[in-house]
Amino acid sequence: MKLISFTRAGKPGFGAVVDGGIVDLTGKIAPEVTDIRALLERDLMAETAAFLSGRKPGLGWADIQLLPVLPNPNKILCIGLNYLKHKQETGRPDVEHPTVFTRFADTQIAHGQPLVKPAISERFDYEGELAIIIGKPARNVPEAEALDHLAGYSIYNDGSVRDWQRHTIQFTPGKNFPGTGAFGPYLVTTDEIGDYRDLGIETRLNGEVMQKAALSDLLFPLETLVAYCSTFTPLSPGDVIVTGTPGGVGDKRNPPVYMFPGDVVEVEIDNLGVLRNPIVAEQAP
Amino acid sequence: MKLISFTRAGKPGFGAVVDGGIVDLTGKIAPEVTDIRALLERDLMAETAAFLSGRKPGLGWADIQLLPVLPNPNKILCIGLNYLKHKQETGRPDVEHPTVFTRFADTQIAHGQPLVKPAISERFDYEGELAIIIGKPARNVPEAEALDHLAGYSIYNDGSVRDWQRHTIQFTPGKNFPGTGAFGPYLVTTDEIGDYRDLGIETRLNGEVMQKAALSDLLFPLETLVAYCSTFTPLSPGDVIVTGTPGGVGDKRNPPVYMFPGDVVEVEIDNLGVLRNPIVAEQAP
Repeated sequence: MKLISFTRAGKPGFGAVVDGGIVDLTGKIAPEVTDIRALLERDLMAETAAFLSGRKPGLGWADIQLLPVLPNPNKILCIGLNYLKHKQETGRPDVEHPTVFTRFADTQIAHGQPLVKPAISERFDYEGELAIIIGKPARNVPEAEALDHLAGYSIYNDGSVRDWQRHTIQFTPGKNFPGTGAFGPYLVTTDEIGDYRDLGIETRLNGEVMQKAALSDLLFPLETLVAYCSTFTPLSPGDVIVTGTPGGVGDKRNPPVYMFPGDVVEVEIDNLGVLRNPIVAEQAP
Repeated sequence: MKLISFTRAGKPGFGAVVDGGIVDLTGKIAPEVTDIRALLERDLMAETAAFLSGRKPGLGWADIQLLPVLPNPNKILCIGLNYLKHKQETGRPDVEHPTVFTRFADTQIAHGQPLVKPAISERFDYEGELAIIIGKPARNVPEAEALDHLAGYSIYNDGSVRDWQRHTIQFTPGKNFPGTGAFGPYLVTTDEIGDYRDLGIETRLNGEVMQKAALSDLLFPLETLVAYCSTFTPLSPGDVIVTGTPGGVGDKRNPPVYMFPGDVVEVEIDNLGVLRNPIVAEQAP
């Protein structure tokens, strides 16, 4: 299944992409289930698949406005320095554990919505990444069982304000400006993806390929990320782990490349679609 | 006013400390206002003060179980390396901006509840800190107006799992184990505190003074912390900034001192009370 979050006539809801259209699932699987997080919390994926069986789409793309795949995760854990080429270009030393920072949910935007270049910085950079969405509660999960706790995969652009990211050793400020985290277009359930290592990821800025890698290149694979994170914090349905970006970020190019209003950035992952966002300037307060 | 969050007969609520007892405020200022965050979101502090005027406490301490002062903040921003002596003991370089990391709300415990030493670490450390609670929405706030956005002050023990904090350059894992963030006993509204710089802070482990400083020692004062954080993220009523710990942490002592089951840690700040917590071992999963 490909699940999307949206607003329709101003009201939030969710649905599934079927035959190029949309089946509205808002309140359909259970009356109180009006978003993907609630669907995951109640473990209703099998019921959702049964509901969709043979069903025709009732909505078109013009009927809805996409939201971030999970508009309201409790936890967004972001992984840094998880591809060798990116770690090398940053000059960071080898570490034995994943590098973990966080993003607040109010930084997120949907596929198609604009990424917002902060007025205070001229160093707004892309980071194309695979996002994984937790489906079942996970605490102290061994690596061998880690993938059983996933609901699915999606695409994230972990937009980074490089000067603010490097104010100190902690990345928090540069990763939490509003409108800098693009998440979409949909959650693809794990049953539709074979081995995630076979997926390729590519980031394009105005059509030019800036990042290109295979998910088999991850220094800490998904199994390790879920196991490690679940050791220090309980993971719940709807939580998101953004798994790190390949080499080729704009900030480490010579000369550096940053994103400015009018640019369009795309992140594509095999079988997960294309996450496309224009860049706009922050509106004056 | 001194505001507390609690459960009473299993139901969450909040109240004010009056004459050594408690006035229950749950649903009393407005029917839908059943916690401190909702009170702040609706800007009902003046109404609360009027309600309390001349009122006698209806509850005793045995009637309630304290919760963290704010059990459910949207954002908990923690400041690192904000006292010279602590920065020196860690060997970190000078920086021109506050060091900001985050804590999830599910790490929090109340005054009197046990701090939980993770089974996976023998390096569980205290960090006594002043916490400030946002009262009015704050975005791009200038330093001169920053304190107007505060609802009040409280005490935080930013319990730190030192080996996990130092797995990489990002502190997230060592600051987010469940049961490691003590927050209490109450929110003291800003009108009860004159100049916060006049406050002293002291951390005691089993009665021995481990940290002692004045809030005038902060490298980045509260005004700067609110202004800086509000530049990269919108601050909302009930959000918490934990403002950094003085020198004397256990991890940097010779020999190092860590917290173990049976220990009792106290953080005291003038006019804000004493935050006292025993240490317990993590229960086997």
